[in-house]
Amino acid sequence: MARSSRPAAGVGPARAVAELRTPALIVDAGLLDANLETMAAALPGPRLRPHVKAHKCSELARHQQQHGHLGFTCATLREMEVMAAAGLGTDLLLANEVVDAGRLSPLVAAGHRVTVAVDSVQTIDAAVAAGVPEVLIDVNVGLPRCGCDPADAPLLADEARRRGLAVRGVMGYEGHAVGVEDRPDRERLVGESMAVLAAAHAEVGGDVVSAGGTGSYDMNDVATEIQAGSYALMDTAYAKLGLPFGPALSVLATVVSVNRSGWAVADCGLKALGMDHGNPSLAGPLAGGLVWFCSDEHVTFSPPEGRARPKVGDRVELLAAHVDPTVAYHERLHLVDAGHEQVLDSWPVDMRGW
Amino acid sequence: MARSSRPAAGVGPARAVAELRTPALIVDAGLLDANLETMAAALPGPRLRPHVKAHKCSELARHQQQHGHLGFTCATLREMEVMAAAGLGTDLLLANEVVDAGRLSPLVAAGHRVTVAVDSVQTIDAAVAAGVPEVLIDVNVGLPRCGCDPADAPLLADEARRRGLAVRGVMGYEGHAVGVEDRPDRERLVGESMAVLAAAHAEVGGDVVSAGGTGSYDMNDVATEIQAGSYALMDTAYAKLGLPFGPALSVLATVVSVNRSGWAVADCGLKALGMDHGNPSLAGPLAGGLVWFCSDEHVTFSPPEGRARPKVGDRVELLAAHVDPTVAYHERLHLVDAGHEQVLDSWPVDMRGW
Repeated sequence: MARSSRPAAGVGPARAVAELRTPALIVDAGLLDANLETMAAALPGPRLRPHVKAHKCSELARHQQQHGHLGFTCATLREMEVMAAAGLGTDLLLANEVVDAGRLSPLVAAGHRVTVAVDSVQTIDAAVAAGVPEVLIDVNVGLPRCGCDPADAPLLADEARRRGLAVRGVMGYEGHAVGVEDRPDRERLVGESMAVLAAAHAEVGGDVVSAGGTGSYDMNDVATEIQAGSYALMDTAYAKLGLPFGPALSVLATVVSVNRSGWAVADCGLKALGMDHGNPSLAGPLAGGLVWFCSDEHVTFSPPEGRARPKVGDRVELLAAHVDPTVAYHERLHLVDAGHEQVLDSWPVDMRGW
Repeated sequence: MARSSRPAAGVGPARAVAELRTPALIVDAGLLDANLETMAAALPGPRLRPHVKAHKCSELARHQQQHGHLGFTCATLREMEVMAAAGLGTDLLLANEVVDAGRLSPLVAAGHRVTVAVDSVQTIDAAVAAGVPEVLIDVNVGLPRCGCDPADAPLLADEARRRGLAVRGVMGYEGHAVGVEDRPDRERLVGESMAVLAAAHAEVGGDVVSAGGTGSYDMNDVATEIQAGSYALMDTAYAKLGLPFGPALSVLATVVSVNRSGWAVADCGLKALGMDHGNPSLAGPLAGGLVWFCSDEHVTFSPPEGRARPKVGDRVELLAAHVDPTVAYHERLHLVDAGHEQVLDSWPVDMRGW
């Protein structure tokens, strides 16, 4: 895969995957590269504004940049700070409302391009107070979360301009649509949401219509830029959608106990996995086996029919149901080869926390 | 509350809770102290072996020690390492199976008392190879997770002794029982599990019968020591059991968006909360309000009937459904006064990761 010329922080000499402490996040470098290539071909350059919340890793963002995407989407102030410090501040969008925007002032002063989402007078005030020069009007397009009432978008744009802010355009995340498994249903919901956003954009003006995610990357024709993030590493929730992105991320675990009644236990639990989308799935030779439940530091499972139980000390791999909150528990992503035998690189998950 | 004489790492001058970046974990110092006192009165000194997995904070463990509990329970090698480095290694039990026990060798060499759970020949091998001198035989008492078949306990004890290990006794966690809301049902399940453990103990020998948790602390009469952890900070899952421990932990969040259709959004999402036990609950003035759902960095909610919607910039507090995986996402616990206005101290969550 495309590699940065400088060594990644914390990388040592090549070592065996078998030497990693578990639980550990491993990333199939070939699958990651294929995912980045596939997306860059579909949405080249500025058509994609990768969302870093999915991986929280500036080194992975650097690889996305090397695939041609210079602008990035962030969800937190820390993500903004770390991206800027990593030299990835060409065009950073905080696609979220904040009232303590003052933490962005040093980024602006240092010459990074900083844009924030606003959906209220208060968040406009916060942008003005922080000296953030550019905003997007965040419009609610159906997900009950942030974003102003569509009817208020032109009023907020007027207010922002009156306060001296440059309004680059609109944003509206169709988060209630991107995960819908049935493609026609998904297309319909995305279309309805984007009709709302397009109407708001017509009144707000500006060059930017920012929206979308991994689940709508190939059906959202209204957005000028898609905020997809999960496509790089993927998870089992998005895998159900039949997208052309492979399961690059897995959690490596060690079997610590085997019971003669038929189950085994590995050291990958609730603190190594985002659980909001449910249990992880067994991968590799154990794919098709049954995950019984997760505890704080354990997953109890049984192997697929006809396959022998693993032995204590065996390594197993699991696929997370939801990539974002899974990565947020871990300190590093370990890039591995196709056989998952050699660690090629280790990247800090340096955007964790707030 | 009882305070250590040395300043905690990272603590600055007293500051207002309003100045904390959000999301942030805040701990009501009075409720924490009351929880520690209540438990120390019920299970004094060695009758409690506090489980540090629930808080992952050596400074909180130090306060548990000051309440008379010198032995601690850990779930991970890192918890063992950090507790030892913090000078809390009087009697550390790794109540979990590990095959890479070599990380414990430096702790043993430094004079800390280290005991590990074993439930197989392989984990006995690992203890021997690491030079860990003492073990407990981990017995399965009904939860399909670690622990040997009860019939195998004496065989494993013999094997451990043959290999030169001191067998201190048995361990058996009734994890399927501790969360059962109906007290008679819980008592029955705990009793059945402990009958299994007592029978194993009669054959294994040793002074220690280690078991239990916050939900069984006052009904497990078989265990010589109870491994409770959640009682210190508590969560809404355990609150349903009617235990005499108060909700010391909450997540402080800031309202970032308010919608005229009736919902508001605060900056406390999936990456600030363990979600395996479901959504968080609103606390304080918003108690009784409805949490709609959580996203990566947001909680969407509506206030209780008859109460005005909060405003952008307002602070809100939420109670986590499950304390352990919630704390594991955060860098610090902020101790606050009874009015939740002043930060009294800030303690690093220094046992995160593995």
